[in-house]
Amino acid sequence: MEYYSDKINKLIEELGRLPGVGRKSAQRLAFHILNMPKEQVQALTGAITEAKENIRYCKECCTLTDSDICPICASPGRNKRVIMVVENSRDLAAYEKTGKYDGVYHVLHGAISPMLGIGPADIRLKELMVRLQKDVDEVIISTNSSLEGEATAMYISKLIKPTGIKISRIATGIPVGGDLENIDEVTLLRALDGRVEL
Amino acid sequence: MEYYSDKINKLIEELGRLPGVGRKSAQRLAFHILNMPKEQVQALTGAITEAKENIRYCKECCTLTDSDICPICASPGRNKRVIMVVENSRDLAAYEKTGKYDGVYHVLHGAISPMLGIGPADIRLKELMVRLQKDVDEVIISTNSSLEGEATAMYISKLIKPTGIKISRIATGIPVGGDLENIDEVTLLRALDGRVEL
Repeated sequence: MEYYSDKINKLIEELGRLPGVGRKSAQRLAFHILNMPKEQVQALTGAITEAKENIRYCKECCTLTDSDICPICASPGRNKRVIMVVENSRDLAAYEKTGKYDGVYHVLHGAISPMLGIGPADIRLKELMVRLQKDVDEVIISTNSSLEGEATAMYISKLIKPTGIKISRIATGIPVGGDLENIDEVTLLRALDGRVEL
Repeated sequence: MEYYSDKINKLIEELGRLPGVGRKSAQRLAFHILNMPKEQVQALTGAITEAKENIRYCKECCTLTDSDICPICASPGRNKRVIMVVENSRDLAAYEKTGKYDGVYHVLHGAISPMLGIGPADIRLKELMVRLQKDVDEVIISTNSSLEGEATAMYISKLIKPTGIKISRIATGIPVGGDLENIDEVTLLRALDGRVEL
């Protein structure tokens, strides 16, 4: 790639390592950055460095945060007796956006996947079990509805059962606004199995 | 967005300013960066800072580079008497990838666009005219085949005409492998007009 100078090539290469950024996007991003005002570039690199250097796991729920305890766990308005287990911080954010859940979370940072060699010890399960020694009324398992997510949900529920704490799993079914004819058979059957009386 | 801590929000916000990066992609990129090894994060921010701080316009062809003269203009193997005019450094790279063009370039950094208020003085035209005072055999205008690109090509050709230097414009027509039925009418008519005898 002699048609760009070394530093531009290096920049394109580094940007190209990001997920979902191919060679063409990396080029476009690189030239965009080079044309950005200097302050904006500093704001970008500053934000990356700041976030990376200060990031840690919340001591309560294990979500990524920049303080010892994340804003959610630190909030007095949240019900600490209900814990929703999610695979990652983005899933947590998805539920927070609804604005209707007032419990707290537990972020596993992954799901059990024998295929990828990820076992129960590789996700933040031990931390969850420690939390359950305090007063907890319910654990809501909100792992993804994928093979790994389901396996993780099963594993966790078996682990928690002996403690007597109420365990629930978010419902699988047709999404709101979903058109039946476009929905896969597995989901349709799950929706049928999970039907509720009206 | 209280569901992420401040520094993560700031990072998502800065990433979201990049072109083609929406809110969701910015979140995904942010968490990817937070999970990257520290050295890789430093490589990324380093590459951005290094490139931005060292970037300048080539004194010959105005492309973005990190030295006074870009590698292409500095190469003894390139024919300085043929200048291809392109809108930006990415267009230059596109031609360089073909590996078949041995002339040099002139990068305008834009195209004339009365709609966007970009006039001839806003692109690197003056620099081109200065270059034409040296021995130049041909100017190949390779601006895009858009309204702005065409307007720019017309403007440049009128500007250069009096100098007596040969001016050419890259051909418009159906792309190689193009399926006629999927090609717009304007292109089809251009291809017809530009037909060559066999």
